[in-house]
Amino acid sequence: MSLLDQPHHDGSAGYVPAGPVAVGDRVPVRVRVPHASAVRGVWLRTVRDGEPRVAPARLDHSGEHEDTYVADVVVHNQPTPYRFLLDAPDAPAGYRWLNAAGTQDHDVPDTGDFRLTTAPPAPAWLGAGAVYQVFPDRFARSARADGRETPDWAVPTAWDTEPAPHAPLTARQLYGGDLDGVAEHLDHLQDLGVTTLYLTPIFPGRSNHRYDASTFDAVDPVLGGDAALARLSAAAHARGLRVMGDVTTNHTGAGHDWFTRAATDPGSPEHDMFLWAGSGDVPAVGADIDPHPPAYVSWLGHRSLPKLDWSSHEVWRRMVDADDSVIARWLQAPYDLDGWRVDVANMTGRYATADRTHEVARRLRERITGLRADGALIAEHFHDYTGDLPGDGWHASMNYSGFSRPVWGWLADPQAGYDQFGLPVPYGRGPGRGMVAAMRDFASRVPWQVAAAQWNILGSHDTPRVRTLLGSAATVEVAATMLFAYPGTPMLFAGDETGAVGSNGEHARTTMAWDQAATGGPRWDLGTYQVFRTLARLRRDSAALRDGGLRWAVVDDDAVAFLRESAHERLLVVVARGPWAGATLPPSVLGQQAPELVYGGSLVGTPSLTVGSDGVRIGGDGPAVGVWRLA
Amino acid sequence: MSLLDQPHHDGSAGYVPAGPVAVGDRVPVRVRVPHASAVRGVWLRTVRDGEPRVAPARLDHSGEHEDTYVADVVVHNQPTPYRFLLDAPDAPAGYRWLNAAGTQDHDVPDTGDFRLTTAPPAPAWLGAGAVYQVFPDRFARSARADGRETPDWAVPTAWDTEPAPHAPLTARQLYGGDLDGVAEHLDHLQDLGVTTLYLTPIFPGRSNHRYDASTFDAVDPVLGGDAALARLSAAAHARGLRVMGDVTTNHTGAGHDWFTRAATDPGSPEHDMFLWAGSGDVPAVGADIDPHPPAYVSWLGHRSLPKLDWSSHEVWRRMVDADDSVIARWLQAPYDLDGWRVDVANMTGRYATADRTHEVARRLRERITGLRADGALIAEHFHDYTGDLPGDGWHASMNYSGFSRPVWGWLADPQAGYDQFGLPVPYGRGPGRGMVAAMRDFASRVPWQVAAAQWNILGSHDTPRVRTLLGSAATVEVAATMLFAYPGTPMLFAGDETGAVGSNGEHARTTMAWDQAATGGPRWDLGTYQVFRTLARLRRDSAALRDGGLRWAVVDDDAVAFLRESAHERLLVVVARGPWAGATLPPSVLGQQAPELVYGGSLVGTPSLTVGSDGVRIGGDGPAVGVWRLA
Repeated sequence: MSLLDQPHHDGSAGYVPAGPVAVGDRVPVRVRVPHASAVRGVWLRTVRDGEPRVAPARLDHSGEHEDTYVADVVVHNQPTPYRFLLDAPDAPAGYRWLNAAGTQDHDVPDTGDFRLTTAPPAPAWLGAGAVYQVFPDRFARSARADGRETPDWAVPTAWDTEPAPHAPLTARQLYGGDLDGVAEHLDHLQDLGVTTLYLTPIFPGRSNHRYDASTFDAVDPVLGGDAALARLSAAAHARGLRVMGDVTTNHTGAGHDWFTRAATDPGSPEHDMFLWAGSGDVPAVGADIDPHPPAYVSWLGHRSLPKLDWSSHEVWRRMVDADDSVIARWLQAPYDLDGWRVDVANMTGRYATADRTHEVARRLRERITGLRADGALIAEHFHDYTGDLPGDGWHASMNYSGFSRPVWGWLADPQAGYDQFGLPVPYGRGPGRGMVAAMRDFASRVPWQVAAAQWNILGSHDTPRVRTLLGSAATVEVAATMLFAYPGTPMLFAGDETGAVGSNGEHARTTMAWDQAATGGPRWDLGTYQVFRTLARLRRDSAALRDGGLRWAVVDDDAVAFLRESAHERLLVVVARGPWAGATLPPSVLGQQAPELVYGGSLVGTPSLTVGSDGVRIGGDGPAVGVWRLA
Repeated sequence: MSLLDQPHHDGSAGYVPAGPVAVGDRVPVRVRVPHASAVRGVWLRTVRDGEPRVAPARLDHSGEHEDTYVADVVVHNQPTPYRFLLDAPDAPAGYRWLNAAGTQDHDVPDTGDFRLTTAPPAPAWLGAGAVYQVFPDRFARSARADGRETPDWAVPTAWDTEPAPHAPLTARQLYGGDLDGVAEHLDHLQDLGVTTLYLTPIFPGRSNHRYDASTFDAVDPVLGGDAALARLSAAAHARGLRVMGDVTTNHTGAGHDWFTRAATDPGSPEHDMFLWAGSGDVPAVGADIDPHPPAYVSWLGHRSLPKLDWSSHEVWRRMVDADDSVIARWLQAPYDLDGWRVDVANMTGRYATADRTHEVARRLRERITGLRADGALIAEHFHDYTGDLPGDGWHASMNYSGFSRPVWGWLADPQAGYDQFGLPVPYGRGPGRGMVAAMRDFASRVPWQVAAAQWNILGSHDTPRVRTLLGSAATVEVAATMLFAYPGTPMLFAGDETGAVGSNGEHARTTMAWDQAATGGPRWDLGTYQVFRTLARLRRDSAALRDGGLRWAVVDDDAVAFLRESAHERLLVVVARGPWAGATLPPSVLGQQAPELVYGGSLVGTPSLTVGSDGVRIGGDGPAVGVWRLA
């Protein structure tokens, strides 16, 4: 049986009415039940205050190939879980559950249930296009940068130099990019189809990455200072672009003025803002604590990054609540950031038996949206974010677990010689079913509106370059098709679109080779650029890719296919990493007209698609990608 | 490959040192890696403040059939999650994870990770034998009951009458059992092998089930009053039995003196103890609210059961904190209850956007263990308890989801005509893999010490009788073997051991036919009794069954087999619902001596077990049960 013959529901507008819901609302939710599924009836199961109840769904529409059932979810908790019970005589147990991970043959916990959340979704602008990550030191250098003083920690480095892959140089090489340099290249972002500029930290620190802020009160003069940020923000907004900042809520730099006072004066208000060894619930020794005085908890034991204590009123005041708090100040004129990406959000407010992460997320969200109704809040989370995204805190997170790792695990070249992300085993070329299982596992455990806003990533300043990971530009096209066609917000690390290489996060922080942009060159791959540009525009202009539902159609070792469907557009996406057996989709997948190819491979092939009486035959070409409009 | 050829770890003493752990402890955890698994190396992955880290495990021992690796988990969070990374070249992805649900071929969320908890486990007495649930009105009537006044709500009913299956009689039939009647039959409990007596509510209400308490300050005079409880408790303790009570923390009865004052006097301190429609966060109308004044939230909308508001200081004071609080008073002399089973624990403290369930669980636990260091706290939870059992609140829960439903789903007779637990589909005779998958899913999401203490149940006063569900005494023997051999604490509903029948929870509340006990009879099945008695004693006397680890060996549609292993005892358990193909276990399963049968079927067959050069052949007999000692 084709996967498309299974009953389907997701949180997109075809199944759940768009718009906010509140406690007490009755929300009609729809399920598609293909006749081929042999399902005889559908019930809705909701969980209310920890107690499930089951009620019949109503047959709403009976079509040639499928029926539609509808049932009302009464919103009561935040979030409100629901799933469907399918009367399926051919199922092993005589029935199946349909939850956000698909159909289930046995009784399962509620973690995979669909969920309605009473919190608004991420702002629409965030998912309207692609997010473009800029590491300011490496993007572009304006003429204004000439003659600026070099900080004492920095090793000035020529623009075309390959970044050092290992300490001590990694954090010290200063290439001299600045914010006016970014402003000068907004044409590039727009040509590529980007809609949001995301800047990694711009506050001064004692490193080129600036995740070790020495103050949150000023933009680094090396980047052009506060005025440069205002200029960049105005220029970007004038073009309709959005701008997001990057803030460390987990820690400051050891050179931060708060920490300096905290470390030297135990009576200072700043002292309570950090976690001191042997004080409160903090042990005297531990993996995160350097025993040399003053002994304090730091990020993964890096002494340069003392961890903030979110039980401290002063932390709340300075970071969030005050009129000129870190979170608030930069969202306001003349800087007008449209939101924050939060560094190490997964650890923020967590230490030993204390866990204030959800409280931090909720109150940051309130503060941001109180200042800017359409402000955005994105969590960095490299790992299992599923417990941290109920919908009312972080709008979404960086989707390493639910997108990057599954896609890398399918497409990465184990021989490519990149760093293994701490995994001491070869990585890559696993089967498509492993990729899809992981994607479904992670996506199913957050509300659809969160899953549909996740920042999907092929590479960042913390990973090897996707070109290096996958080993060829051709495979990058396969991955990029996944990136732009899968639900969520595509995030590019500047340079991915030009074929930049790098074997680990530090080595990957390459500069942009602007001198090669027009003609191409060893550091500007025009073929790869065209792939990203075409796909970004395809997604920007497609309601189905931006906001449509997701139905898996084929899961093969070497190829996957899925449908993205919105009210007026249906797309079939086929992605193959190599030759495979091909597959036949049921005739029900077809619309009134013949499928229209809207994207085919340029560095790889395009699969054949043949319409016959038994359905739609997808050829086993590979590597290959194709996107068809199904009318 | 046999399931026994897979690497294995669980939380039992063979893998994790027994005893309490604290934040900062380094706990060595062991993994068994059969050579047949082709695993080349093992790493430990822990999660610390939301961030995983991976470190190599050390080869600790290399044996003929398997290696043992060991690694140190540093306890940091409550609970502290961990899993193992297996370097497995033959795995689809090149590696596998080993978590509490087994080996995983793709990257999975942390919910299935093993967990170390800093909270003590359930008291040892709870798991030392079986728990015996007594519904006091139906167990035994003492001579003292003669002449007691009949409450106005009650319909006096003769002892041998079949209980009504439907309202209005169900809650009103009064058979007249009392606590002295229970005390008179403690010989029966001990003969059966029971070690804990659990009494459903004994406070007066307006029903025979008494879950609608009109006071928590007195034992119902119909049951003999406070003095009868003191007598029963003393008699039970004198025999080394433990006694647990049953308390409704979610609601009181509408006739409770607290509610009467609350409903009539809005200025009373009791008023704030309940949830009033239209006040605070409570909507004016809703599914749990009867609109007739006074409109209040009640349990599933049953007006007789007004829901307590755990944001109320007065609720905390009267239920938990006061010297004579409900929780505290009955644990003290002369009543000396050894702990509480908490009714509707899954909903307690939950309403709409408020969720105080974990706080209630933790503070009840603190209060109980403050008074009695070995006191027990068990949650009623009919559904997905996995989010409610981190180890520091409820010691464990009633294990409907992780034991009862999986076993019923495998063994129930869909034609048997019992009520379907709200599921509008036929139920039963699903494949063994569905049963095991559900058992593993639920067990894997709570710390081992919780899973090993769960109250496993074949039937309760809220379900059809197991004899009715499964359709035959023979199949009950198959289920009972699962009950006494699977990790956790077996809980019997009084009468299950005599073959009582009943098609739903109310209909199942049969009286004990003491007059048939000696000779057997239509309401006292001596064959079934012997099955329960023998199995209860087998478990009581077996360290492996009480506290051993669990390794699944065979999962077939019609049969399952597993090992229970402790330091000095290894048992093989085989359970078949019907004929099947049989299976061969690898030679590594054998010890020095030939397997010794310690339990064979008496109402069903015993499988053949043949030792050969290729391993241990289990014959495909069925229905059949067998337990062998392997050492």
